[in-house]
Amino acid sequence: MTLNVGVIGTGMIGQDHIRRLTQVLSGVAVTGVTDIDAARATAAAPKGATVFATPAELIRSDKVDAVVICSWGPAHEEQLLDCIAAGKPVFCEKPLVTSAEAALRVIDAEVAFGRRLVQVGFMRRFDADYRRLKAVLDGGTLGAPLIYKSVHRNASVPAGLYTSDMPLNDTLVHDADISRWLLDDEIAAVEVRLPRRSRQGGELRDPHLVMLHMAGGAIVDVEISVNIAYGYDIRGEASCEKGIAALPNRPATVVTDAHGIRQAIPEDWRERFIEAYDQEFREWIVAAGAGTATGPSTWDGYAATLVGDAALRAVASGAREPIAMRDKPALYAAPVRKAA
Amino acid sequence: MTLNVGVIGTGMIGQDHIRRLTQVLSGVAVTGVTDIDAARATAAAPKGATVFATPAELIRSDKVDAVVICSWGPAHEEQLLDCIAAGKPVFCEKPLVTSAEAALRVIDAEVAFGRRLVQVGFMRRFDADYRRLKAVLDGGTLGAPLIYKSVHRNASVPAGLYTSDMPLNDTLVHDADISRWLLDDEIAAVEVRLPRRSRQGGELRDPHLVMLHMAGGAIVDVEISVNIAYGYDIRGEASCEKGIAALPNRPATVVTDAHGIRQAIPEDWRERFIEAYDQEFREWIVAAGAGTATGPSTWDGYAATLVGDAALRAVASGAREPIAMRDKPALYAAPVRKAA
Amino acid sequence: MTLNVGVIGTGMIGQDHIRRLTQVLSGVAVTGVTDIDAARATAAAPKGATVFATPAELIRSDKVDAVVICSWGPAHEEQLLDCIAAGKPVFCEKPLVTSAEAALRVIDAEVAFGRRLVQVGFMRRFDADYRRLKAVLDGGTLGAPLIYKSVHRNASVPAGLYTSDMPLNDTLVHDADISRWLLDDEIAAVEVRLPRRSRQGGELRDPHLVMLHMAGGAIVDVEISVNIAYGYDIRGEASCEKGIAALPNRPATVVTDAHGIRQAIPEDWRERFIEAYDQEFREWIVAAGAGTATGPSTWDGYAATLVGDAALRAVASGAREPIAMRDKPALYAAPVRKAA
Amino acid sequence: MTLNVGVIGTGMIGQDHIRRLTQVLSGVAVTGVTDIDAARATAAAPKGATVFATPAELIRSDKVDAVVICSWGPAHEEQLLDCIAAGKPVFCEKPLVTSAEAALRVIDAEVAFGRRLVQVGFMRRFDADYRRLKAVLDGGTLGAPLIYKSVHRNASVPAGLYTSDMPLNDTLVHDADISRWLLDDEIAAVEVRLPRRSRQGGELRDPHLVMLHMAGGAIVDVEISVNIAYGYDIRGEASCEKGIAALPNRPATVVTDAHGIRQAIPEDWRERFIEAYDQEFREWIVAAGAGTATGPSTWDGYAATLVGDAALRAVASGAREPIAMRDKPALYAAPVRKAA
Repeated sequence: MTLNVGVIGTGMIGQDHIRRLTQVLSGVAVTGVTDIDAARATAAAPKGATVFATPAELIRSDKVDAVVICSWGPAHEEQLLDCIAAGKPVFCEKPLVTSAEAALRVIDAEVAFGRRLVQVGFMRRFDADYRRLKAVLDGGTLGAPLIYKSVHRNASVPAGLYTSDMPLNDTLVHDADISRWLLDDEIAAVEVRLPRRSRQGGELRDPHLVMLHMAGGAIVDVEISVNIAYGYDIRGEASCEKGIAALPNRPATVVTDAHGIRQAIPEDWRERFIEAYDQEFREWIVAAGAGTATGPSTWDGYAATLVGDAALRAVASGAREPIAMRDKPALYAAPVRKAA
Repeated sequence: MTLNVGVIGTGMIGQDHIRRLTQVLSGVAVTGVTDIDAARATAAAPKGATVFATPAELIRSDKVDAVVICSWGPAHEEQLLDCIAAGKPVFCEKPLVTSAEAALRVIDAEVAFGRRLVQVGFMRRFDADYRRLKAVLDGGTLGAPLIYKSVHRNASVPAGLYTSDMPLNDTLVHDADISRWLLDDEIAAVEVRLPRRSRQGGELRDPHLVMLHMAGGAIVDVEISVNIAYGYDIRGEASCEKGIAALPNRPATVVTDAHGIRQAIPEDWRERFIEAYDQEFREWIVAAGAGTATGPSTWDGYAATLVGDAALRAVASGAREPIAMRDKPALYAAPVRKAA
Repeated sequence: MTLNVGVIGTGMIGQDHIRRLTQVLSGVAVTGVTDIDAARATAAAPKGATVFATPAELIRSDKVDAVVICSWGPAHEEQLLDCIAAGKPVFCEKPLVTSAEAALRVIDAEVAFGRRLVQVGFMRRFDADYRRLKAVLDGGTLGAPLIYKSVHRNASVPAGLYTSDMPLNDTLVHDADISRWLLDDEIAAVEVRLPRRSRQGGELRDPHLVMLHMAGGAIVDVEISVNIAYGYDIRGEASCEKGIAALPNRPATVVTDAHGIRQAIPEDWRERFIEAYDQEFREWIVAAGAGTATGPSTWDGYAATLVGDAALRAVASGAREPIAMRDKPALYAAPVRKAA
Repeated sequence: MTLNVGVIGTGMIGQDHIRRLTQVLSGVAVTGVTDIDAARATAAAPKGATVFATPAELIRSDKVDAVVICSWGPAHEEQLLDCIAAGKPVFCEKPLVTSAEAALRVIDAEVAFGRRLVQVGFMRRFDADYRRLKAVLDGGTLGAPLIYKSVHRNASVPAGLYTSDMPLNDTLVHDADISRWLLDDEIAAVEVRLPRRSRQGGELRDPHLVMLHMAGGAIVDVEISVNIAYGYDIRGEASCEKGIAALPNRPATVVTDAHGIRQAIPEDWRERFIEAYDQEFREWIVAAGAGTATGPSTWDGYAATLVGDAALRAVASGAREPIAMRDKPALYAAPVRKAA
C-alpha cells in the first residue's frame, strides 16, 4: 500500500524531501504540493501530483493521506491544526511553532484528537551513531550518565542572515532535543556563558557555552561554534559513573601524507546526516501509513521552543533560567525515546 | 515506472533480497519467484507474486522484466544463458559460474547479444568506504598505488561445511575483485603462502597469505583468516608513491571503560555490508530499468573464477601461478570501475 | 659539576624523587635528607648522604646546594623562606603554601632577594603531549583559543581521606595551572556546577564541572571525576577560531579482540606522568646549578592557591567568584610559559 | 659507582652517544675517545677525557671500563675481538660485522671468554611501544602469532649514497631483529618480491615486499618503502589465533582543521626512537657495570647478517632462500628476548 503525501513548501528543504520521497524511499508517493510561490510549486511537483492553491486545500484533499510541512515557521501552527482537524498524520520540519503558546495550542488539539499525528523533524534521533550511543547508555553497564558534552560546530553561517540569537533559538534545538532523548529526561534550567568572541564571524556572538540542567541532575555542556572554518563537526560524549561513551569520528578514508595521519570532516549537515534524513522518513512512512506518528513529538517540539526561549533569557540575565513545562499529557507519556 | 523482478532461489540470501526489494527500495516489485523447493518459494513469495515451477518459466514470463539469481552456483550458467536469450537484465549472486569455460560461454552469449545484461554480486564496490578509498586513489595526489594490503577476517566459519579450499575459491574472490577495481588493473599471477596453522579451526588450513601480482606491477597482499574469533574485520590499505590511503574503522560508539578506549567490531558480513547491499540493488534497478547492466560484469565474474583456480594451483605448487585471460571484448572495454 | 641536593620529607613522594635524583638523572647527587620521622629519613638516605635533624639545618648546610621540599603543605612556608634566606634554589612540591597570605610572604621574600629561587611542582608543563599542544596553539595557525576543555578523571580516590573539598582545592590546581600556561593568561573568576552525584563515591561530592574565566575572555571548562573506575584519564582540547587542538590518546598497544579495537588507559598519575616528572627535574637541575629557578614559579603557586579558594567559595555561593591578584612583580614578568 | 666509557668513532652517531652519556644518563662518564680523524676526536672529547691514538690503546687503557663502538662496519670485528680479549663490555652499533664468517669469529671468542660482553645496537627492543606489544603477545590471551606485518617507511634516502641493496642489507635488519624478538623465533628462510617501482627514487629499487619464514611457521610480511615523502612511519601488527595486536600511532597533538582530524608523523628515526636510544644505554650501563652484557647479543648480530645476505640472494633468485645457522652456543641460550 502506497502512502500518498502532500508537501507544503517547496523551497530547498521541501525539494530535497520530494526527491527523497520519490527517488529514495519505497511505499510512498508525492501526490500533492503547494507553495506561496505557485510557479515554484509547479516546478517541484512530481509527475502526476496535484498543485494545490493553498495548504488548507492540500490538507483536506482525498488525494493526500499524510502531510509534510516545509513552510516557514510562522505558518506551521495553522497548518498543523488543520492536519489534526483532518485527522491526517503530519511531518513538520523544525521549528514546530514559534512560541510556547502556539505549541500548547497544537498539543491541546492533538490531545483532544486522542492519537499522535505529528512528528517533528529532529533527524539526529535517526542517526545510526546516536542510536548506538543511546543503546550503550541504556544498556546500563556504564552506570548513570552524569555529564553529557555536546559539540556543534559549523564551518560558517551566512553573514547577515544568521543573527546572534540564532545559535540559541535555532542551532541549539538539536543539541537540546538529542540530550533529552539520550538522557531520557527533561531540561529544567538553562545557563549561557560567552567565551571570547571569534573574529571569524565579525560582530556575530560566537562561540557559546550552554549548560542544560536536566531534571534528574545531569548537566549537558554544549559548545556552539558557527564559524569555525574547518567543517561541520558534531560530537557527543557522556561521562557516566563508570565510564565514557562517545560518538565516533565519521567514516572517512585514512590518508597518511604530508599533513599527517588524517580523516576528512564533513562539509555540512547534509553530508553528515543524509542517512538520518532517509531513516527519519522511512519510520514516518510506516507510522503515517498506520494513521499515527512516532518519533519526536509535539511535546518534543514544545520542549525545544522552551529551551530556545530560556537560552535567550539566560544570555540577557547571565543567570540560570528555569524552564516550567505544563504537565505532560498521557498521550506523550511514553519515554522520550522511540525504541530503535 | 516500476521494475518487475523475478527471484530464482528463495534460500537465506534470496529471502533477504526479496525483503530488500519489497521493503527497502523503491521503483521495484517482486512479481515472480521460483525455487527447487516449491513450498519454500510459496512461503517467500510476496503478495501478488507468481510462483513459477521452473527458472525457465520465470525468465520467459511477461510478468518479469528482470531477474535476480540466488540459486546455487552450478545452476547459474543455464539460468544466465536463458536470461540473455530472453534479453532480460539479470543480477547474479557470486559465483558467476563454477568454471572458466562456463564463464566464457556466458561472455560469448552476452557479447553476441550486444549489450550488457549481467551484474555480478560483488557488493564491496558499492560500499561507501571503498568508494571513498577509490576516489582518493583516483584523485592522484598520492601517486601510483604500489602495494595494496587487504585483510579479510571472519570470526568463524561452519566446521565441516567450510573446507580448506574455500578461503581461496570462495572467500578470496571479494579481495580479488575489489583489488582489480581499486587499482583498475587485472591480476596476472597468484602466489599463496601458508603461515603456521591456527588452532581455532582444527585441521582447517587457516590463515592464508596471498599475493596477487597485478599486470601493472603493483602487488596485492591479502591476509585471509577465517576463525579469528573476535569479529568480522575487513581492512584495506594502499601504499602509494607519496602516501597511504586506508579504509577507516567502522563507526561504533567509542566506549572508555575497564577494557580501555575502544570501538566494537561488526559480527559478520551482513552487519558490515548491509548498506552496500542496498546500494548495489539501487544501482541495478536503475540500469535494469534501462534494459542493461552496470557494476561488476560477466568479465569480472570470469576474472574471479580464474583467480580462485590459480590460487588453488598455487597452494599445490608453492609457485607463482600465472593467469591467462582471453582478449577482453569491447563490450567490457570500459574501465573496471563504474563511476561512483 | 654535580648539584648537591637536600631532600626535606621522605614519605612516598620524597622517596620517589630520591630514586629519580640518584638513579635516573645525571649531574646531581642527594647529599642530605631530613624528615619529622628520623628513622624514615635514615632509611631513605642514599649512601654518603647526611641525615639532618631539622629542615633548617639541612638548608643551611654547606653540603647542600639546592633543596627539594616534599614535606606536608603547612610546613612549606617556613622552609621556603629559609631557602630564600640562604639564597638556595628550591623545588617545592605542590601546594606551594596553604593560604594566599603565605604565598604573598614567599613572593615578597623572593622579590626582595632579587632572583628567582623557587620552582613549584606542576609537572604537566613538562609533559611532551602538553608541550606539543602548547606549540600548536602558540604557532597561531588555528587563531586564538576561545574555549579550553580539560578533563581530569581518576579511577578512584581513598574513601575517607579524600574529602569533598579536595576536587577543588587539590585536584583542580593541575587543570588551573596548565590552563594558565597553555593560554598564557590569568584566571579572573571561577564558577562551579555540580552534576548529579556519582554513586561510585558514596557521599563524596563528585563529579564537578568548573568554569575558569580567563582574563582575556577564553573560558576553560573542566570536568573533574574522581571515582570513574576505568582508569586515570587526562584530556585537553582547545577550540580555537579556526580549528581544534587536543591531547592525543596515550600510546598503548592497539588490541583487537572480543572487546573491540582498543587501547588501554593508564591506571594512575605515576604511570601517566612518569616522564614528565623526570623532565621536570632535568630542567630544575640545570637552573638550580646556575643558582636560580625556571619553570612554574612562586607566582604560579600563588595563582593556584587563589583558584582553589575561589572554587570553594563558588560551590558555596553558586555564583561567579572573582579572583583578585596583587600586581605582578617584575621578577615574574616573563610570560607564564617557560619556553620548551 | 661511575662506569668509565671509551668511545671509538666520533662521527655523527658517536657524537650523539657522547652527548647521551654525558648529558642525559647517570652513572656513566666518557673518559676516552678515539677516531681515525684525531682532530675530530679531540673536538668531540668531553672535558677530562683522554684522546687515544688508536682503538687498541683505548680498549686496553685502565681509564676505560667499557667501550662503545661507532666506527664503520669493516672495523668492528677487530675492535670487538680486542674488547673480548681485554674482558671489557662493549656496545657495538649495527652492523655487528660485515660477514657471517666474521660474526662467527666474534661468537667463538665470546664463547671462549665464557661470559657475554657484547650488546648490539638494535634500539627498537628498548622502545616502549614495542615492549608493550611484546608483553601483549607473551601474555598469551590472543593465542599464537601467525602473521606479523612490519612496515618500514622512510620519507627519503640520500640519492646516490643509498643503493638498491641497502633496503635489504641495511634497513631490513631492524625489522628482522624485532621480528625474531617479538616472536621468540629464528628466521628459517627469506623471500623478496618487487612491486611496481616508485618514481620517487628514480632508478632505486623501491619498495620491497619481504617475507621472513620463521622456524616455527609464522610468516613476517615486511614492506620497506624508502622514499615515501610523507615521513618516517614504523608500524607493526601481529595477527594471532584469537585477535590482533598492533603498535599505536605515535603521540602527537590531534589537530582538526581544513586538512581533517589529524596527527603528525615523525620526520625521521631520531625523533621516533630518541627515547629508545636513551633506554638502550640505560640498560647497557647497568649490565656493563656488572661486567657483562644483556640486550641484543652477538648471536642477534649474526642472525641479522644472515638475513641480509639471504634477502639479497632472494632478490637475485626470486626464490625462497633458506638460512642455515650454526648451533646456538649455550651462552646465548636464553630466550631471544631480554625481559623488559
